[in-house]
Amino acid sequence: MSKLMRINMGTKEIRVENLSDHADYSHFGGRGLTSMIVSREVPATCHPLGMKNKLVIAPGLLSGTPAVNSGRLSFGAKSPLTGGIKESNVGGTAAFKLGRLGIRAIVVEGQGEPGKWYCLVVNKDGASLHSADAYKGLGNYDVVDKLKEEHGDKVGTLTIGPAGEMKMSCASIAVADPKGRPTRHAGRGGLGAVMGSKGLKAVVIDDTGAEKIEYADFDAFKRANAKLRDALQTHDVTKPGGGLAVFGTNVLVNIINEAGAFPTRNFSEGRFEGAEKISGEAMHDIIKERGGSTTHAGCTTCIIQCSNIYHDKDKNYLTSALEYETVWAHGGNCGIDDLDSIAQIDRLCDDYGLDTIEVGGAIGVAMAGGVKEFGDAKGAIELVHEIGKGTPLGRILGSGAALTGQAFGVEDVPVVKRQSMPAYDPRAVKGQGVTYATTPMGADHTAGYAVATNIMKCGGYVDPLKPDGQVELSRNLQIATAALDSAGFCIFIAFAILDIPAGLEAIPEMLNARYGLNMTLDDVTRHGQEILKTERAFNAAAGFTSLDDRLPDFFKDKPLGPHNVVFDVPDEKLDQLYNF
Amino acid sequence: MSKLMRINMGTKEIRVENLSDHADYSHFGGRGLTSMIVSREVPATCHPLGMKNKLVIAPGLLSGTPAVNSGRLSFGAKSPLTGGIKESNVGGTAAFKLGRLGIRAIVVEGQGEPGKWYCLVVNKDGASLHSADAYKGLGNYDVVDKLKEEHGDKVGTLTIGPAGEMKMSCASIAVADPKGRPTRHAGRGGLGAVMGSKGLKAVVIDDTGAEKIEYADFDAFKRANAKLRDALQTHDVTKPGGGLAVFGTNVLVNIINEAGAFPTRNFSEGRFEGAEKISGEAMHDIIKERGGSTTHAGCTTCIIQCSNIYHDKDKNYLTSALEYETVWAHGGNCGIDDLDSIAQIDRLCDDYGLDTIEVGGAIGVAMAGGVKEFGDAKGAIELVHEIGKGTPLGRILGSGAALTGQAFGVEDVPVVKRQSMPAYDPRAVKGQGVTYATTPMGADHTAGYAVATNIMKCGGYVDPLKPDGQVELSRNLQIATAALDSAGFCIFIAFAILDIPAGLEAIPEMLNARYGLNMTLDDVTRHGQEILKTERAFNAAAGFTSLDDRLPDFFKDKPLGPHNVVFDVPDEKLDQLYNF
Repeated sequence: MSKLMRINMGTKEIRVENLSDHADYSHFGGRGLTSMIVSREVPATCHPLGMKNKLVIAPGLLSGTPAVNSGRLSFGAKSPLTGGIKESNVGGTAAFKLGRLGIRAIVVEGQGEPGKWYCLVVNKDGASLHSADAYKGLGNYDVVDKLKEEHGDKVGTLTIGPAGEMKMSCASIAVADPKGRPTRHAGRGGLGAVMGSKGLKAVVIDDTGAEKIEYADFDAFKRANAKLRDALQTHDVTKPGGGLAVFGTNVLVNIINEAGAFPTRNFSEGRFEGAEKISGEAMHDIIKERGGSTTHAGCTTCIIQCSNIYHDKDKNYLTSALEYETVWAHGGNCGIDDLDSIAQIDRLCDDYGLDTIEVGGAIGVAMAGGVKEFGDAKGAIELVHEIGKGTPLGRILGSGAALTGQAFGVEDVPVVKRQSMPAYDPRAVKGQGVTYATTPMGADHTAGYAVATNIMKCGGYVDPLKPDGQVELSRNLQIATAALDSAGFCIFIAFAILDIPAGLEAIPEMLNARYGLNMTLDDVTRHGQEILKTERAFNAAAGFTSLDDRLPDFFKDKPLGPHNVVFDVPDEKLDQLYNF
Repeated sequence: MSKLMRINMGTKEIRVENLSDHADYSHFGGRGLTSMIVSREVPATCHPLGMKNKLVIAPGLLSGTPAVNSGRLSFGAKSPLTGGIKESNVGGTAAFKLGRLGIRAIVVEGQGEPGKWYCLVVNKDGASLHSADAYKGLGNYDVVDKLKEEHGDKVGTLTIGPAGEMKMSCASIAVADPKGRPTRHAGRGGLGAVMGSKGLKAVVIDDTGAEKIEYADFDAFKRANAKLRDALQTHDVTKPGGGLAVFGTNVLVNIINEAGAFPTRNFSEGRFEGAEKISGEAMHDIIKERGGSTTHAGCTTCIIQCSNIYHDKDKNYLTSALEYETVWAHGGNCGIDDLDSIAQIDRLCDDYGLDTIEVGGAIGVAMAGGVKEFGDAKGAIELVHEIGKGTPLGRILGSGAALTGQAFGVEDVPVVKRQSMPAYDPRAVKGQGVTYATTPMGADHTAGYAVATNIMKCGGYVDPLKPDGQVELSRNLQIATAALDSAGFCIFIAFAILDIPAGLEAIPEMLNARYGLNMTLDDVTRHGQEILKTERAFNAAAGFTSLDDRLPDFFKDKPLGPHNVVFDVPDEKLDQLYNF
């Protein structure tokens, strides 16, 4: 049975439903399922931190199987940051374990007593709620240590840190990686605040004794999985010894900087003079020297292994999964060229439970507003501590870049739908700009990663500096991404399947073999389209209009060096994105 | 000639146009003119603190004449608080002086050099810009003293305090009263921040030697003015010895508290146990004892004289124009029952240049979020100082209630279009709730003061606790108010003209006699309708939808004591407000 588990935090009632009884939900997993449930069960105009919002946790359709790179877990809710629908997905081990337990979704409803905290324990026998008052105020590292003491080393964990408890709009949900560290974060959109508003501090997932997963055709499944594995291991970007495996995602610093699209000092320039010092290549050498790990699987069933383990100067563990977007957010975006400081901020964000992108965006805006000087690494670290402590300044920054901009009267605030833009300037990677503008998620690079085609020339090439073809590119990527997010795949399989047809074919083949379906690639595409349209309809019902599908004026008015480009995809073209 | 004066803060160019050359603008004054100019000249989606916004300053059509209670001055711009169009009007002496100089509007455009401040001096010969760097950081009281030293005691002044310089969304524009004190504030919507974003610290208006105003028919004007004067001096609310004259607007504390509509402790209750101590009656006795003034004309040509002068315990001047909304915002709304503390906060807000309503709303939300205890008067005073100093906590509060709610994760935030609700709980004065929901201004009591009919039974009676008839009531009041705001009249003439037909007739008669027109009451109404529709169209172009015409959920979900009522005017009815 595919289970949908409902946890009412007010009554403490736990109810298990058969997903097959929900015709609307049964063909979706991951983002597809979170978005369907949120859109049908959460009033679009409700307060994101109130009784009526729901936090939906859903592994992908293939989670729990050995499908390569299928370890993503989706969280969905109405976002306290954007005010719209939100899905944020994450690696770690939890999705795989939920999949093994036959749990397709956990829906956290209602609200607990103010000031009381709970831990949800899920295992083969069902689920139970326990007091987590003892964990109040603890950072993610400490909470996960305590959970492992109590429940054993092998459990999966979902936790929030102090930021989530304080219901900050930058608050993330941490998912433990295979080493049991809370380094993988569903960061975007403040879903940690929604979890906090429910009074839920932690979820423990123990898949001990889970029944074996049934396949409609296990041999076909294995064959399809091998096709995808081959594609990943053949493609230049994802193969062993390729850029992602050797340098991690931070390989992008030099690539994006060279492209003139590396947002520097709050998106005021496109190249950072200190890029080399914080590049993937530099990081690789530091890690090698100090005995961390340049390559590391952050997610169950991952064969790309883009993650890493970063040690401090004394060769002690400092942080893991130090990714490109984090390095950019606290590096170039803040004018900081010291990798150790950035790594320390990453550790702090992981521990306090914060989205590194949104926090970096907020600090960049605060620096533009004169709160600290650009380049002040020590100051930036102090600011992250302010957030963790919940001081007034921390409350501002912890509420995100848009709020920080208003608080400090800053005009150039790089957000869409109040969410901070990630590490690609939309003026110089225009496909990415289209995605930022039009995805229902608010500015989000993963929702339609046009960098793949604009810069890395996967799936063809669309000139990143010209407006032509960007809407079509972003549209196709957004649809495909929604489908992959539903299946539970890592977005990085996109590089390979854009270029290698056999890899692409493997997706419906695996779904068919697992569930006994007869889906074609067109069906997968249709599911992606349905997910996007559902999300967009929620946002419309929440009050969003086409004007919310726009970049801030300064991207259209202020040319970005070195290419001296503005964002010039016409509004009328942006409004065609949903013509499908 | 009716002049439209354009001040470009970037080029420092000053251009005088003939208003008659602008067919779209020439029939409007005050709010009518600010809204027409903003709607035609300001891109609806621009950043409110950017180059493209304009600050429009317009006296009413009858300003400069002896028309009773015609001394209102309108400020208009795109609001940094609401993101929509904004008009905020104010008393004092400036409107009269501008009217005498034949200036119908000053349009402040562009932006000065960052960090540089200017003072605009307007007199019979034109206008000139001067450095105001010496006034940087000064409060309104000091700035106005310096302006009077330089330009003489008789000038009118428009100034911003530190809040406006810091571009805070709560920042007001202060207008000196007839005693030359900066006690009258265009408070709502953060227009002081727009003035600050232009680099304009002060405007001095010197009407010395102004030419005599020409009337099409001065005798007819005098006759009509006498009709309005008679109406005001006859009506119970506005007559000499009536409630407004004796107790000021603060007469409302006991009335609204008795009605169960006095929002207490962040809108969680409808009656405040400490109301008597902060009532108009109590204030009257304190003022009498200390030698202030219970009645005082805050605006040129005012014959109601609802203003006051409040002395401290040592019988020294503390503040003036201590109004009901201020007493409520920092009294019942914060659980504070000490009038001296409230008067001190009023003085601080006047000096820092802050909207007392928005600041009170923000402090109430912060108290609900645990920043201070409800009832902590000393703490509330400290919070206002935080705003004036621009500390991080001050930046939060100075950005208004909506931002404060997000920063502290508070769910019940009493705002519409991100603007704080004034002193009437919409659950117990439902006509007022309709106005809050539907006016283009964001929650604003003056935009359609249904309290007049719901509570004071002027112009008939509509039961405040029932949903029926409230949309019709609010619609008619909003249209009439827009017309009065265009003429430059104080909203308090509404009590009299709702009940006394001769008073109402006097309005078109005065306009006709002044300008040689043939307007009927229907024409005045049509102008009011045109203003409202223009404002609403701007908001639609800025991205507002019918969902922005709603009260927050908690007004619909949480019954208000003592009447145990929720806001139950149906959404479909709210959406009919603009059916005219």
